[in-house]
Amino acid sequence: MAKKASSRLEWRINVPDGASKVLEPESGAVGKIWVGLKGCMGIIVLKVWRVLENAWHIGVADPRKVIHCIKVGLALSIVSLFYYMRPLYDDFGGNAMWAVMTVVVVFEYTVGATFYKCINRVIATFLAGALGVGIHLVAEQSGDQLKPIILGISVFLFVTSAATFSRFIPSVKARFDYGAMIFILTFSLVSVSGYRVVELFELAHLRLSTIAIGTSLCILVTMLFCPVWAGCELHHLIHQNMEKLADSLDGCVTEYFKENGSEKDLNKKMQGYKCVLNSKAAEESMANFARWEPTHGRLNFRHPWKQYLKIGASLRNCAYCIETLNSCISSEIQAPPCLRKHFSNKCMKASSYSINVLKELVITIVKMKKSSNIDVKVAEMNFAVEELVDALKSLPTTHFIATTTGEESTKAKAEGVEGSEHPSPIMKVLPLVKVVSMMVEIATRIGGVVNAVEELARLAEFKAAKDGKPKQNQPTDKLVADH
Amino acid sequence: MAKKASSRLEWRINVPDGASKVLEPESGAVGKIWVGLKGCMGIIVLKVWRVLENAWHIGVADPRKVIHCIKVGLALSIVSLFYYMRPLYDDFGGNAMWAVMTVVVVFEYTVGATFYKCINRVIATFLAGALGVGIHLVAEQSGDQLKPIILGISVFLFVTSAATFSRFIPSVKARFDYGAMIFILTFSLVSVSGYRVVELFELAHLRLSTIAIGTSLCILVTMLFCPVWAGCELHHLIHQNMEKLADSLDGCVTEYFKENGSEKDLNKKMQGYKCVLNSKAAEESMANFARWEPTHGRLNFRHPWKQYLKIGASLRNCAYCIETLNSCISSEIQAPPCLRKHFSNKCMKASSYSINVLKELVITIVKMKKSSNIDVKVAEMNFAVEELVDALKSLPTTHFIATTTGEESTKAKAEGVEGSEHPSPIMKVLPLVKVVSMMVEIATRIGGVVNAVEELARLAEFKAAKDGKPKQNQPTDKLVADH
Repeated sequence: MAKKASSRLEWRINVPDGASKVLEPESGAVGKIWVGLKGCMGIIVLKVWRVLENAWHIGVADPRKVIHCIKVGLALSIVSLFYYMRPLYDDFGGNAMWAVMTVVVVFEYTVGATFYKCINRVIATFLAGALGVGIHLVAEQSGDQLKPIILGISVFLFVTSAATFSRFIPSVKARFDYGAMIFILTFSLVSVSGYRVVELFELAHLRLSTIAIGTSLCILVTMLFCPVWAGCELHHLIHQNMEKLADSLDGCVTEYFKENGSEKDLNKKMQGYKCVLNSKAAEESMANFARWEPTHGRLNFRHPWKQYLKIGASLRNCAYCIETLNSCISSEIQAPPCLRKHFSNKCMKASSYSINVLKELVITIVKMKKSSNIDVKVAEMNFAVEELVDALKSLPTTHFIATTTGEESTKAKAEGVEGSEHPSPIMKVLPLVKVVSMMVEIATRIGGVVNAVEELARLAEFKAAKDGKPKQNQPTDKLVADH
Repeated sequence: MAKKASSRLEWRINVPDGASKVLEPESGAVGKIWVGLKGCMGIIVLKVWRVLENAWHIGVADPRKVIHCIKVGLALSIVSLFYYMRPLYDDFGGNAMWAVMTVVVVFEYTVGATFYKCINRVIATFLAGALGVGIHLVAEQSGDQLKPIILGISVFLFVTSAATFSRFIPSVKARFDYGAMIFILTFSLVSVSGYRVVELFELAHLRLSTIAIGTSLCILVTMLFCPVWAGCELHHLIHQNMEKLADSLDGCVTEYFKENGSEKDLNKKMQGYKCVLNSKAAEESMANFARWEPTHGRLNFRHPWKQYLKIGASLRNCAYCIETLNSCISSEIQAPPCLRKHFSNKCMKASSYSINVLKELVITIVKMKKSSNIDVKVAEMNFAVEELVDALKSLPTTHFIATTTGEESTKAKAEGVEGSEHPSPIMKVLPLVKVVSMMVEIATRIGGVVNAVEELARLAEFKAAKDGKPKQNQPTDKLVADH
């Protein structure tokens, strides 16, 4: 930068004398620097542009994120009124800063996360303040010059180290990580400043009241203006993942047995299971935040959020299988078309019944009502899978033996191991066998999802759905169209 | 609580009169409360005890976590000296609080995370302070009474909202999430307090210098005393996961083909792939922190950390397959022992060659030297897999047909679909075919891991290993024994 500035300066000064003369010998270096700089600027502009473009897409995809920003601005504006209004300022003075700080640090995207931080902050500040003041008083009582320092430092080290270590314990980390941090912070500040400030009690009172103002403001703003509930998000994520899984399964089977179809659309549909594979971290953090949320809508305070994690795990279990199925489908060696056609109907049937079960579960979760015909659908799925297995069982007698007995079998024997041009009968069937066995395995694992959802229905006391089939079919279509 | 206290009080007052009389009718309620309280206390004590036990195990398993706590205590003790030493206190006054705060907030477990927070904090504070003071000056110049407020609030809203939104952009979130938060915080504090405090420049200078003291102290302590490098952790995690995958594969195949073995030990070994499935979040956060770390040991500043994520993804890809293999193995329907024995050798051979490849990759990563015989090992693996496939191909001619031709085939035909008692030939082979095809798929995916590791060797400019086979076999044994 400095080099570039100086060379540009020289160029400008020399212009009146003879621009061409001085410029000529320098132009190589200057030009290079200029080109390099232009390149750098171009890259920076491009990067910034990409980030902005990215931001635009994020904003369009989820306008609630934009609303969240406005909410933060609103909360900060309100809290800064404490500074601008004389009577309030006189009460709190410089400590009003803590209210601003609280708002900035505590205001989170979801209500649950905001609650988690608020409650942790208030309780941790109170506990650490009380403990700090208590230790300070004890140390003061002991009188000697050295005693308070030794006491102070030893307890200080002990408490902060214990609090720091508690953040490594998973169960503490999930619920009180932020609280432990605030505890260490407040305790350090109190122990350190306790040596100087005499009016410790008044200070503590002021600090606590400013933090209370900040946190209650945050809670009000986050709950009143377009609240984003972590519980709802988790609920939504789980049934969305279930739909994606159903779509992936549908896409995979259609892709495998298709004769000629629109590939692009299918490919995108098939990739849905990848979201399921990667959503573990999101699910866990949402479940952590959701348990701090008060009752909202149909989701109660003590809703069994942990069960959602179990459903998520069973969905991932399915997704592993669909991943393998997907790799079977995209492998180069495929079963001959006649064989595929033979299985096409039964496979499609099994997959569509499996998808029906998943969609029924989606409805159960969305409506939060026990499904009346899930048992029927599971039975249908199991029956379709049985049929598929039977078709596989009967394969040797209808097709397999036909190609291996007689002349062909002796031919195969003669060729022995090298029969790669004439693939041996089992190699012909192998890809199809893999697909079919994956279908069976997926159906088994969907059974696991059904169990997890039924356990949720039991724990959250879902009511039984009132109507029978005719009405329940409508939402399925709507949900599918919605996707 | 109140009820219990009052009833105890009554009991005490009444003792002199006639304990037995008053106690008799009350004893039911008092007893119940007492039992309930004891139960509550018991649960709390048990919970605390479990947390402590958990903490003890964590500390024993990784003593570096205990050291981290001591480091935090050390850094806090040093920084609190600023309060206790007169000359330093006179320089900084109440602002020394910011140094303490910085240490508490910024000190993280790994060096990379500490660097990330330190750099973000310093730069964000500087930028936000400069912008805040600049806006403050412009607003002051414009003179009018209303202008500064409007200007202030509008820019304030705009800047904080933009900064808040930037935290939703993944690329910004990964690198500058903490910075954005500190930017909002500082900017709000400066804009708000700018209205009051005249000595803004001096304040800014003090604040920046205290933060600089806090951050440099953190960096010194974190780097000098038993540093925990995020890069090393990531490096370690990746090759550990690779070993776990190899062990799982070994465990699965041994379990499947074993005649009678020690089950417990094997089962634990087999579950290693689950760690690989769940380590995505850890890998990503470590890679994020690792890029802030300076050169340490053999890991440079611009080490290709992103490639580690790709290796991790390819390992997970393998793990999906091992998961499916595992479910094949634990399914109830199994191939008859004679068939299993037929494949036992070839399968064991293919798996042990696959494991060899993985172990060779582990050595490549641990030693950070290009392996000289990875190509040989991959070729061996591919050859073993070919042999396995050939064995499968030759199956119909050697075994399969033998059971289906002649009397058996007509019997099967006559039984048709219902032949569940006499499982049809394909059903006999099916479980084995699944296992074999999974073995083939796993070998293919190990190929993906090999490619990813080779790309890492290219990007990180690994040197070629000097010696040949004899010496390289030693570490394999050591690594295996180490596990």
